Amino acid sequence: MDSRLRERARQVIPGGMFGHLHAKGLPEGYPQFFRSGQGCRLTDVDGREYLDFMCSWGPNVLGHRHPEVEEAVRRQLDLGDCLNGPTEHMVTLAERFVDLLPHAAWALFQKNGTDATTTCVTLSRAKTGRRKILVAAEAYHGAVPWCSPSLLGVTAEDRAHIGTYVYNDVASLEAAVERASGDLAAILVSPFKHDYGKEQALPTPEFAAAARRLADAEDAALVLDEVRCGFRLSMQGSWHALGVEPDLCSWSKAIANGYPLAAVTGGEAFRQAASELFVTGSFWCGGAAMAASVATLAVLEREDGPGHMRRMGQRLRDGIAAQAATHGVDLVNSGPPQMPLILFADDVDYRKGELFARETLARGVYMHPRHNMFLSLAHTEADIDEALEATDAALAAVAQHGA
Amino acid sequence: MDSRLRERARQVIPGGMFGHLHAKGLPEGYPQFFRSGQGCRLTDVDGREYLDFMCSWGPNVLGHRHPEVEEAVRRQLDLGDCLNGPTEHMVTLAERFVDLLPHAAWALFQKNGTDATTTCVTLSRAKTGRRKILVAAEAYHGAVPWCSPSLLGVTAEDRAHIGTYVYNDVASLEAAVERASGDLAAILVSPFKHDYGKEQALPTPEFAAAARRLADAEDAALVLDEVRCGFRLSMQGSWHALGVEPDLCSWSKAIANGYPLAAVTGGEAFRQAASELFVTGSFWCGGAAMAASVATLAVLEREDGPGHMRRMGQRLRDGIAAQAATHGVDLVNSGPPQMPLILFADDVDYRKGELFARETLARGVYMHPRHNMFLSLAHTEADIDEALEATDAALAAVAQHGA
Repeated sequence: MDSRLRERARQVIPGGMFGHLHAKGLPEGYPQFFRSGQGCRLTDVDGREYLDFMCSWGPNVLGHRHPEVEEAVRRQLDLGDCLNGPTEHMVTLAERFVDLLPHAAWALFQKNGTDATTTCVTLSRAKTGRRKILVAAEAYHGAVPWCSPSLLGVTAEDRAHIGTYVYNDVASLEAAVERASGDLAAILVSPFKHDYGKEQALPTPEFAAAARRLADAEDAALVLDEVRCGFRLSMQGSWHALGVEPDLCSWSKAIANGYPLAAVTGGEAFRQAASELFVTGSFWCGGAAMAASVATLAVLEREDGPGHMRRMGQRLRDGIAAQAATHGVDLVNSGPPQMPLILFADDVDYRKGELFARETLARGVYMHPRHNMFLSLAHTEADIDEALEATDAALAAVAQHGA
Repeated sequence: MDSRLRERARQVIPGGMFGHLHAKGLPEGYPQFFRSGQGCRLTDVDGREYLDFMCSWGPNVLGHRHPEVEEAVRRQLDLGDCLNGPTEHMVTLAERFVDLLPHAAWALFQKNGTDATTTCVTLSRAKTGRRKILVAAEAYHGAVPWCSPSLLGVTAEDRAHIGTYVYNDVASLEAAVERASGDLAAILVSPFKHDYGKEQALPTPEFAAAARRLADAEDAALVLDEVRCGFRLSMQGSWHALGVEPDLCSWSKAIANGYPLAAVTGGEAFRQAASELFVTGSFWCGGAAMAASVATLAVLEREDGPGHMRRMGQRLRDGIAAQAATHGVDLVNSGPPQMPLILFADDVDYRKGELFARETLARGVYMHPRHNMFLSLAHTEADIDEALEATDAALAAVAQHGA
């Protein structure tokens, strides 16, 4: 079925598929098309079931079809989704963001993570009257010309005011700020370094503090891009534990457990400019995704979602590290436990990583060899232990292959 | 309830609301928050019911909660929405676009209309290796810096390669093409002129033909922005009846009857470049909106949706024109009947239009004084006749006010 669908898709979709869910970025044997999901399990169109560690690349933070989210969505769909204005859910949801996040005085809603990051950039420029935006080299902030990882179809002007620094390198951030000084609108930064195919890195306290200090010194915005990790690390914002509060945050992926929604939150100082900005979309006020988000945040808070995912991620990480030691495989675990990335030493072409992923997939566990993975609230200790059986066999294969 | 929600919203949403659904753009008395929709009827949070002529500003082309669409969505939600890849619906939907549209050899999917127009711009540049994009002055193509009607937060570079022409003015289009010659990537054009607060205009056959001829002469893309009117005027593309086929089309709003979805369709010549482009979003492959779209297109085709909306829109237009003549009110009906705009002569400040809208609203009919309105398949002759009772009284008020 998957191969028949791929053949049909090749006729009517350029390259047969597009974007980050294109299976061409995965080892052979990975399915392209899916039928269903339940909790942390996925079923592809051929009926094969997987214990999933991608969670749709983030969105399914409670697991697929969480009953409270589904009920909230059905209740709204029974009334209607896209109306001539928002429903009460929009207000309730904005209140929830403001209640949860110490930095936030208000919220705006969109559909894509890229909508949220782009809104933060535009808003920073609107507020400051300046133009320069600093981003970490190789960081992902979306897939439109100002930030896309691809330069195809991008003009020089699209990035005329985008400067770069090196993540966790205070001196490079200082130098970038110095170059932009007088015209700096915002420092845009991910809560941790999660670049594709690279070892992940948590922010050093010095780096986070420097970002805040330098933004303040230039009267520019500190924008934290929470799209990928928001509400997996903390319910109060990913840098709250570091004692650093951003001016603006972009959110998406996990905020509505897979229903399409994005958000920007900001502090009081940005409220006026935000009220003057014109940003909109045909479906941005749809009630169903907002009802889903209200339910998602409630479950995450009540169940301590970040804590649960941290514990399950740590159990997975510890188990795999022990297995790797047993098999004599040199493995690099990185990132927060909730969003693990497993790389292998001396593996520049990702051959070991791809073998590992293929072998886990063959045992019913869906992992990614280059992109960070995602835990969900639906992953239990039993699920982790089931995954560890697959990784043990996969690591044995890696060890054998290396020998 | 509406006023209480507005007060709560003022605390946590900049300006209390954002974007095109902000009630500040409407006369006093219009609700900001809605509870539900059914067919062509809307209910606000205070329980007031309206016979609606905005259809959520386009999306609800079959009317709210069309049973076939709702069933398709529920069936997919019972399986899951956002998975690790697309469902079969994506292939089926791309096949449907290709089957329906003579210009199309393939389709790509997004979430916002702006995603689709931006993808068309990027793809035109990718394919041609050139930079200039020509748009009609005052035309709306989205709400990001390259095209937003607001310049707040926009840099000069965001529009460095955007040129303008005057809609339906062949000489101005020729001059714009001449200025961009050698660096022209695309001519971007709406199927008809539907600028906010202005009399609408259908394209002249000469203008449409010139756009095609000039794009061909420069080997540039002719991009038709179908976001607002797609599948309301025709199931084969809005310029098909003119004998002009575009290279690329952007679609959104009505394609999934209110569920969030956008699409780009294109011809064979753009397939290779489209396959190399990196455009993506976290929710772009969600199965529910695609299932909704497959169902929406099936109903529109089977029921001749464009024909029905044209007849209902014409009945409304004829009725209002007759009433205006009776009341001695000089009224300007413009645009295709499916997307009517009602303006008044000598009404530069829209006072007559706003009075007309307020008076119809007071009689339970939701119209817009400045933006084109939208018919749906759910509007029956009885609904139109009910609306005409309200417009008759509203026109009497306009006549009395003018006297």
